[in-house]
Order: sequence, then structure tokens, then C-alpha cells
Amino acid sequence: MYGPLVRNAQTGEAMAKIAMKFGGTSVADLDRIRHVATLVKREVDRGHQVAVVVSAMAGETNKLVGWTKDISPLHDAREYDTVVAAGEQVTAGLLAVALGAIGVPARSWLGWQIPIRTSAMHGSARIEGIEPGLLNERLGQGQVAVVAGFQGIAADNRISTLGRGGSDTSAVAVAAAIKADRCDIYTDVDGVYTTDPRIVAKARRLPKIAFEEMLEMASLGAKVLQTRSVEIAMLYRVPVRVLSTFDPDAGGTLLCDEEDIVEKKPVTGIAYSRDEAKISLMKIPDRPGIAAAIFGPLADAGVNVDMIVQNVSEDGRRTDLTFTCARSELARALKALEDAAPAIGYREITSDSNVAKVSIIGIGMRAHPGVAQAMFRTLSDKGINIQVISTSEIKVSVLIAEEYVELAVRALHSAYELDTA
Amino acid sequence: MYGPLVRNAQTGEAMAKIAMKFGGTSVADLDRIRHVATLVKREVDRGHQVAVVVSAMAGETNKLVGWTKDISPLHDAREYDTVVAAGEQVTAGLLAVALGAIGVPARSWLGWQIPIRTSAMHGSARIEGIEPGLLNERLGQGQVAVVAGFQGIAADNRISTLGRGGSDTSAVAVAAAIKADRCDIYTDVDGVYTTDPRIVAKARRLPKIAFEEMLEMASLGAKVLQTRSVEIAMLYRVPVRVLSTFDPDAGGTLLCDEEDIVEKKPVTGIAYSRDEAKISLMKIPDRPGIAAAIFGPLADAGVNVDMIVQNVSEDGRRTDLTFTCARSELARALKALEDAAPAIGYREITSDSNVAKVSIIGIGMRAHPGVAQAMFRTLSDKGINIQVISTSEIKVSVLIAEEYVELAVRALHSAYELDTA
Repeated sequence: MYGPLVRNAQTGEAMAKIAMKFGGTSVADLDRIRHVATLVKREVDRGHQVAVVVSAMAGETNKLVGWTKDISPLHDAREYDTVVAAGEQVTAGLLAVALGAIGVPARSWLGWQIPIRTSAMHGSARIEGIEPGLLNERLGQGQVAVVAGFQGIAADNRISTLGRGGSDTSAVAVAAAIKADRCDIYTDVDGVYTTDPRIVAKARRLPKIAFEEMLEMASLGAKVLQTRSVEIAMLYRVPVRVLSTFDPDAGGTLLCDEEDIVEKKPVTGIAYSRDEAKISLMKIPDRPGIAAAIFGPLADAGVNVDMIVQNVSEDGRRTDLTFTCARSELARALKALEDAAPAIGYREITSDSNVAKVSIIGIGMRAHPGVAQAMFRTLSDKGINIQVISTSEIKVSVLIAEEYVELAVRALHSAYELDTA
Repeated sequence: MYGPLVRNAQTGEAMAKIAMKFGGTSVADLDRIRHVATLVKREVDRGHQVAVVVSAMAGETNKLVGWTKDISPLHDAREYDTVVAAGEQVTAGLLAVALGAIGVPARSWLGWQIPIRTSAMHGSARIEGIEPGLLNERLGQGQVAVVAGFQGIAADNRISTLGRGGSDTSAVAVAAAIKADRCDIYTDVDGVYTTDPRIVAKARRLPKIAFEEMLEMASLGAKVLQTRSVEIAMLYRVPVRVLSTFDPDAGGTLLCDEEDIVEKKPVTGIAYSRDEAKISLMKIPDRPGIAAAIFGPLADAGVNVDMIVQNVSEDGRRTDLTFTCARSELARALKALEDAAPAIGYREITSDSNVAKVSIIGIGMRAHPGVAQAMFRTLSDKGINIQVISTSEIKVSVLIAEEYVELAVRALHSAYELDTA
């Protein structure tokens, strides 16, 4: 490692370029916006160059989404984006004013002004590139960049938005673009926990978590960061810290490379998701091409299939297939499968939305055989039936009846020795 | 006149290109936005190409302005514009959705997307040009353009706003740019009245008013249209109609060329403004350059001086000077004059903010001598003292004590035979 070029004359701390992100509860009203300005000023006073990414004031996005849906459930996604992006625009301007009021030079940046270029998938666009030139120029002049999160501009010159939690992604992407030394995500919790503290009182804050683990945690139900933001952090090796806006010195959680984590327990965290539904197709023909006949129409209908299990055929001719998707997509999935019934040739279709997914995650799993087996035994001891299993190198997910979620998460948290002493 | 090229097959009505503008009370909630969509659809169904300009939902602009000022009274005007312009952005998107929901193809346009280029005077920018290419292309394809009013983009690529009432100006400027056949301003009153109906119950709606008269009415206190919008309408000869959103068939008022008005009464309307303050400088030296010594510092302080009267010097050496400005600028004006006291050399300075301006307006005045005299006599008969007088070819304004405003307006309304029968 090379040392930094510049150090703060008073503190000796290395002067860095940092990105900070504040979510909706952190900017929920004018007093909180003023508080955020003081947190930004703290970093500026340390000699850092700072880009801040802000969400809309808590409740604003829901209000704007509600209005749009109320007028038409079948609204044009480009208009949805135009309406909803106004929330972050307001916060960015207000924070720039609040910074100016305490003597910190600042300006707001909207997605189209930087620009933050995204795909054309309005409502859930992906960032394709951020031009860092203007931002870096102003940062170099000592001006704080207040960036409206959640938004970008698509090739059609229309405002795009990145989907719920998108400001996390804006922040990490901006950090990557300006080559920030780190990205601090300020939120209403003081870090990433071993599991949801509302379910397990003994949940512990993790001082560090590997990018790969965080990615699984986020995609398997932990709501602390948008999945896409972790992907970008991992891809560009942006050190990300999750911190509390209301207790910024509480320690937080650092997302880092696997190698930077010394003690590797078999399981780092437990995630769960209630947004699950299960569909079973009974007695489908056991022939080549049957999977394509089923999942093709689902993909066309925009259904994201998650776990899949196909039973061993009893007679070599007919078998059963079960898969899961988000609850909000269940009706669409059933419709697509009913339309495709002649092509598939199933005997019966059943569905269940009283299911949930519980997952154990840990990079240590690779070095510890028997981790999955311990999970199955723990659930079995509590009388919890496993409906579907899905595994990867660093996680095991099971689908269970929703009513057992809390019981399962608590039992696993103890079984893998994650409880606080 | 050449006839129009295309007529509606059913009605025989000429197919036209029209601009429509809806103010804040017209789009105050989702139901009203839906109602506005039906008014737009009515014009589309008649075969017209339609550009709609919308204000923010009633109350939104005040809320956003309030937030900005609350955080810092000395905010950066560019951030103010960024925050405040969000209101129109939301309405534009919502109306586009509402139009889509009733089968009318539509898209929203923000100031920077068209673009509507403005001066750099953030907070009260002037439109410098509107590129009509994109709008005309889409209008030609039968798509309604929903334009966010009140906003544009300055040369620094920042959002600019046009000052209070700026959406009127956006509408007329868009109408001029796309060469619209007319611009319909929908508001919460059904037209322009001879005077404020809240003061004079017998006030009459004017079916027609000349551009020049409307310009005087607007700048002398009638709040129905922003002054700048009338200037642009006059300059580009855009026929403007003022109509009620809630009773769109009630007739309204047409702004037109003087020649199109047949019956020219001496006085068309009576305007008043309570936003007036008077400053008098006593015993100033009666020498060349004294006016520059007084009004230079005022201009530097951003004070807009309105009426001015200088007394005849009694001894050829000292005289008194009185002028008026907006009440909100009184403190600034006094400060500037006190700072400049040594250079001016007045003996005493007095001010009064309990004054108001009452004006009679009419193009017929040119052909009718004695109109001003009738005004002075009417006020004298009521015992109202005139403090300052200012005249132009088509108006006479007087400054009086504020407590006499209603009495003066009612007396003049009767004297010039404007009362309804």
C-alpha cells in the first residue's frame, strides 16, 4: 500500500475523498437535514472532499408513488419516474442550502446534471455510467457535491429511477466513479446485524462483513442495503461502511474483502424473507424441453423465479415441479401458467403464499462441512418442515411455513453461536 | 385572413394548435387533475393539437418555498429553484398519467428537456427562448405535451424559475414558440373583471380586453395574469383567453388587439395595489444630478421605484421629493438613502406604508379628454386626498391612504359607468 499524499495538519489524518449517503429517515424533516449538514461539515473540517447522496424525505416517495398509482395503476413508467424523482430533488436542494447556512460551500446535483446514465428500464433502471469530470472538478475546489439519489437519466433524455433502495446504489456508484476512498451509508440502524434484531433480541452488530456475504444477506431479505449497491461495491472494491445517522460514532459495519476478515465463523448471519409464494405443477411430462415450456412464459410475464425443485420421476414419464417467486408476482405467474397449460401439459396446479424463506450465510461455510446438515437438524428438532432447499457456496436457504419464521431464525441464531454472550 | 387548412369532419370547426394552462387551484388534488385531463381530452377530441402547461398543486410551492427559507433566509437562489421547481415536475407527470388513463397519448416535459432557456436571474428568470422542434414533432404525432410551468434552464445547466405566477408566462411563451392559434389560461375565476369582485359586487366580466390594457391591469395590481405573460402575448400577438377550470363554458375573457374591440369606453377597468410604500426626502438641493444621487443608490440596492413627484422649488435652492416602492423594499430603500445622505444632502426623510395605489385603465382614454379630471373630482367628492399622481397614455394612478381603497374603487367603478345594470 502506498501512503496517502496529504494529511490534515492538525490531526495527521489522511485527507481523503469520501461519499456519504443519508436515507429517508435521516432527512425526514428540516431539523434532521440540518443535523445531516453538521455530519457532512465534520468530514469537511477533517480536510476531506465530500460527495453526499440523499434520499427523499421519509414518506415523500410513498406519497408520490401513491398519487401516481391512484391516478392510474397502469401508468407510464417514464411519468412515474418524473413524479417520484422530485422527492430527492427537493432534499438535495435543501441540504445544499443547509450546508451553505453553516459555511460549507455546496451545490446540488440532479441525475441528469452529472449525468448519471442508466438503462431504459424506467422504474428499476440500472446505472450504466457516471461521468465524474464535473463532480471531481468541484470537489477539487472544496465544494461539497449533494447528489440526488435514486435517479439518473436514460438514453431518451427522460429521468429514470433505480427502484426501491436505489439511493444506496447511487451512493456506491458515485463513490466508484469519483474513486472515493470510502462510502459511508448513514441509516437508522448502527450497522449490519447477525439477523433482524426485532426478531432476535440477542442479534449482534457485525464490525465487518465480506462483500459476498452482504450480497447474499441483501438479496435474501436483509433490508439494510439494496442488493445492486453491494454488487457495485464488490465489483469496484469500494469500502462501504454502514453507520447510524443518530449515533455516528457507534462503530457501524465495514463491508470489505474476504481476506480482511480474520475470524471466519461457519455462519455470519441469518436472513429471512416473507415475500415468497410457492407454485407446484403436478404430473408434468418428464421430457427434454419441459423446463423451457414452463419458465419461458414466466419470464415473458416478468416473473422472477427463485428456488426450483423437480422431484425424481416415479415412472420415467411424469413428475412434479415446484418453484417460488415474490408474492406480488403470484397472480401473474398463475395466469401465465394457465395460458401455457396446453403446451406444458400438467395435471394440476397448486399455490401457497403462506411460506417464507430462511437463509444462513457465511463465507466460513466453505471450510466447514456439515453446516447445512446442522441447519436441517435444528429445524427438525423444532418440528419445522422444510419444503424447498436451495444452496450456494456460501448460503443455504430453506422454504418453510411462514408461521415458523421467528422460531426458525431464533433457533438457528443460537445453533450457530451467533447470540451475544 | 386565410382560412385554416383542416376542419373537423364532424363539427366543421377548424383544427388548431392550442396551448392550455392550469393554475395551482385547478390541479390542487388528484380529482382536479383528472378533471383537467377531461378538459384537455375535449380539445383533443375536437381535433386540436394541444400543449398543456401546469402549475404546482395549490400549496406545494408555498410549502417548498417555506422549507427553503426556514433552512436559510440567505439561500442560494439556484438551490431555491431546484427545490421549488419540483412542484411543477410532479403535476406534469401526474397529468400525463391521467391523460394516458383516459386514452389520450401524452408525455410530460420539464423545462430542461424542451429546453426552455432563461436568463441566469435565478428565482425570477426571464424566458430567452424555447426550442419548439421536439414539441412540434410530438404534437404532430398526436401526443399531448404536458409542460411543467414556471421553470426553465439557465446557461449554467441549472434549473431556473420565473417568479410567482410564472406558469402564465410559460404558457404564453410555449404558445408563441409552437405558433399556437390560441392560449387558454384556465384559472379559478371565469375571466378578467372590470375590478376585483370581492370589493365591488357589481364588477362585470370583460368579454374582451386589449393587450395594452391587460398589461396595465396586471402591472397595477390585478392578479389574474403575470405581467410578463401579457408582454409576451402582446409581442407575439398570441390570442389569450382567461377561462374558469370549474365552468369552462362560461365565456371568459379574450385578450386581443385594440382594433378588435369595437366599443371603447373611456375606462375599461380599475386596479389597485396595497403593496405600496411612500418615501419623502425634504429640502434636497435643487441642482442638476440630484435625481441620480438619489435613485442610483436605490437601484444598486435592488429597489424598484414606481411613482415619483418632485415639488416646485420655492426658493430655487431647496425642494422636496417623494417616491413609492413595494412595501417589502421599504426597509432596504431607507437604509440605502441613509447611507447616501452625505451625497444627497436632504434635511429630513419620512416614510409611510399605509398607502395604496388606485388606477383607472382604458385605451378609450386617448379619445376622451377629461378622464383624469373626472377621477380627481370623484375622489375629492368622497373626501379622499390624492398624495401622488402618475399617468400614461392609457392609465391614471393615484396614491391614497390605504383605508380609502374600497371606497375609492367603488366610487370610480360607478363614476365610469362600469357597474352592471
